[in-house]
Amino acid sequence: MENIKSFELSKEFLESLQEGIENQQNDYIIQSLEGVNVADIAALLDELNMEEAIYVLRLMPSDVSADILIELEEDSVVKVIREMEAFELAKLIDQMESDDAVDILNLVHNKDREDVISHLQDKEKSAHIVDLLRYDEDSAGGLMGKEFIKANQNWNVIQTIEEIRRQAEKVEKIYSIYVVDNKQHLLGRVSLKKIILASSDTKIADIYEPEVFSVPTQMDQEEVAEIMRKYDLESIPVVNSKNKLLGRITVDDILDVIREQSEEDIQAMTGFSSDVEESDSIFRISKARLPWLLIGVVGGLMGSQIIGYFEDGLSKYIALASFIPLIAATGGNVGIQSSSLVVQTLAAKSVFEESILNRFIKGLLVALVNGLMLGAFVFCTVFFIYGFEFRFGLTVGIALFCVVLLASFMGTVTPLVLDKYGINPAMASGPFITTANDLLGLAVYFGVATLLLNL
Amino acid sequence: MENIKSFELSKEFLESLQEGIENQQNDYIIQSLEGVNVADIAALLDELNMEEAIYVLRLMPSDVSADILIELEEDSVVKVIREMEAFELAKLIDQMESDDAVDILNLVHNKDREDVISHLQDKEKSAHIVDLLRYDEDSAGGLMGKEFIKANQNWNVIQTIEEIRRQAEKVEKIYSIYVVDNKQHLLGRVSLKKIILASSDTKIADIYEPEVFSVPTQMDQEEVAEIMRKYDLESIPVVNSKNKLLGRITVDDILDVIREQSEEDIQAMTGFSSDVEESDSIFRISKARLPWLLIGVVGGLMGSQIIGYFEDGLSKYIALASFIPLIAATGGNVGIQSSSLVVQTLAAKSVFEESILNRFIKGLLVALVNGLMLGAFVFCTVFFIYGFEFRFGLTVGIALFCVVLLASFMGTVTPLVLDKYGINPAMASGPFITTANDLLGLAVYFGVATLLLNL
Repeated sequence: MENIKSFELSKEFLESLQEGIENQQNDYIIQSLEGVNVADIAALLDELNMEEAIYVLRLMPSDVSADILIELEEDSVVKVIREMEAFELAKLIDQMESDDAVDILNLVHNKDREDVISHLQDKEKSAHIVDLLRYDEDSAGGLMGKEFIKANQNWNVIQTIEEIRRQAEKVEKIYSIYVVDNKQHLLGRVSLKKIILASSDTKIADIYEPEVFSVPTQMDQEEVAEIMRKYDLESIPVVNSKNKLLGRITVDDILDVIREQSEEDIQAMTGFSSDVEESDSIFRISKARLPWLLIGVVGGLMGSQIIGYFEDGLSKYIALASFIPLIAATGGNVGIQSSSLVVQTLAAKSVFEESILNRFIKGLLVALVNGLMLGAFVFCTVFFIYGFEFRFGLTVGIALFCVVLLASFMGTVTPLVLDKYGINPAMASGPFITTANDLLGLAVYFGVATLLLNL
Repeated sequence: MENIKSFELSKEFLESLQEGIENQQNDYIIQSLEGVNVADIAALLDELNMEEAIYVLRLMPSDVSADILIELEEDSVVKVIREMEAFELAKLIDQMESDDAVDILNLVHNKDREDVISHLQDKEKSAHIVDLLRYDEDSAGGLMGKEFIKANQNWNVIQTIEEIRRQAEKVEKIYSIYVVDNKQHLLGRVSLKKIILASSDTKIADIYEPEVFSVPTQMDQEEVAEIMRKYDLESIPVVNSKNKLLGRITVDDILDVIREQSEEDIQAMTGFSSDVEESDSIFRISKARLPWLLIGVVGGLMGSQIIGYFEDGLSKYIALASFIPLIAATGGNVGIQSSSLVVQTLAAKSVFEESILNRFIKGLLVALVNGLMLGAFVFCTVFFIYGFEFRFGLTVGIALFCVVLLASFMGTVTPLVLDKYGINPAMASGPFITTANDLLGLAVYFGVATLLLNL
């Protein structure tokens, strides 16, 4: 794959870099990082300890260091920020676009933040940053940048090109030029392609497209991501409630939002209490995993109480114990399937959401079909193949059927309730709910057994 | 949210549209869809039955219908294709960019495909399509389009603008202009911004950036997505093994790849055997869920055999039954946590993958920490609070400890093995592995009990 001009990082290179840092071979370090993409340098620094990383950041030109800082993992950024003086950090932030600057400043302690901002050289940018810091990090306002090209509808093509020239250094990627009226209201967009192909004296008013998607500052970032994905946009303007153009969001930030969201969902489903990676320390991974495992264990201990309550019946029908895993596992599987289907719908923000009632009816019907088939299958196996008595087979079959219905109901309700209260609905497929379902399943199983077997 | 110029679809609008179709009120239909984004029209048509959808597609201008067809869900596209004549489909495909055309043609039966291609008017595009159809759908080659702007390094800015003008209709979004030599080898890229700001007689050779990421045709689409995300690219050129420029991939396709991947992972984790949505029919949802549930049930029945084997011991220590759910659930939770951590690393294709050995050692250590704490906690609860005898408490605690170690080991190995054989490693967090873990957990539990309690 020699065609990818990506830098293949090796442990050897990392070690030679560490050696260079230790021996303060500045020329060697600079030379070996020459031409390496900042995202790759950041990946390298993520593997170093903080003194080493900061050593490299101080050594590189400040525009390069700024780009590296943006690409570092959040943990690393926090550590770097803690070590750096305010003026040093300000020097890097001066080189960033406003949205990246705000991402970094959001990681700086409140009391130090003003200190850093006061050291910024670029006063226009510092005003932008103060403005952007007001928005929620996870909203369109928190995601937008102030660097973009806007053109007044009364300008002609030449004037617009002049504006592009004036902003060329600040705006790295242009995508679309947004068209505004004298009061900065968003009117539409014009592509660079159109600007290139139009004659110099063409008025912008004559060539812009008035149909443009925009989002309000308060919109949730995941909704923004879904709009940009659905309508194939590489940038989207952000407006206030009076349609005044305030900023723009670019697709590279959206790719990160989508990836984060997908990781969060999977973490919610698998029961990590915080964002961990395989490369984190053993202590940290253990700590992130333990709380949910503990909930599962406490649930299991509560389950033992439920079963203990039926101990007399159990000693009469010892075989009842054999089918406990079957009941628990099926309940868990059905619950996860039902909830994930609802979560998927919630995430897609699909246009036609089924009404709550329809969802329940449908979920119930699916559960009926599956429950009947599984219950019948299990009854037949237990009765015909394992040779248990008829009533016993019926008990296991009916209990399984009930558990499928119940788990399906819980799996449908839980994500809807969580979503309503602003909690990530993917949690519904997580260990907490699975544990609750297990307990319910046990209660149902022994309840059915008590009724049918006269325990 | 009146600022979003998105079309809010309502059930009422859908119904009025259906009525319009039934009564063949063509003017009404055209008028009511006027100015609606194609992605929204597609979402509407996904809700209609096929005759209705095709009625609308035949009514709209063919460029609009082509865009709608691209945005439809795969199921709907397949149904539409089945109903349409080859020449009709060709008329729509004539209006598409080559990558979209190939996506549609990949859904056409092999034998009908040539028929459709033979009806294409645009002979250049038809050659492109035949070329693109050779690549695997999930590879960079399958994702790339043939519509992009390339400039010879010997051209000047004016010649390049002429090329843009010539291709303006075909290439909707330009992003970067790729620079090639006389043999079509990729040399670098130049942004539209640079073209606009350069004087007309500037040579491309003097302004292009030679550092450009490119990917080979055979690269997996998920790897392409990760490269574009990591390096913040909105388009990437695709080259053959001789670095000849063959096509380009744009970020809108990548957004779809990422979303698909995330849905696939969650489906693998939650045990759906095929791609379903909440809006699908009850039969279809049941069918997609049943196979994995059945595997879980068969696993549960096998579990009952394991427990049945220890029935004599169980009747001596009936309390053993009470802790079966605890053992099974903890094993399941640990297995899912371990595997999802590995899956996350595999997906990120992080630069420094830990060696297999390191992974095992680390996973083992984390499991040791968690296993010891959980085992001790359970022992204390069972012995001190529940008041069971010492040996019994020890049995449950030690069995839990062993299950945590074993499940962690399985959770680490399974995704690595699956990934090695080209199977989605997220399957490792799915029902099959969870079921296998449950069985192992039961065997360990009763094994430990046999040893410690002299069953």
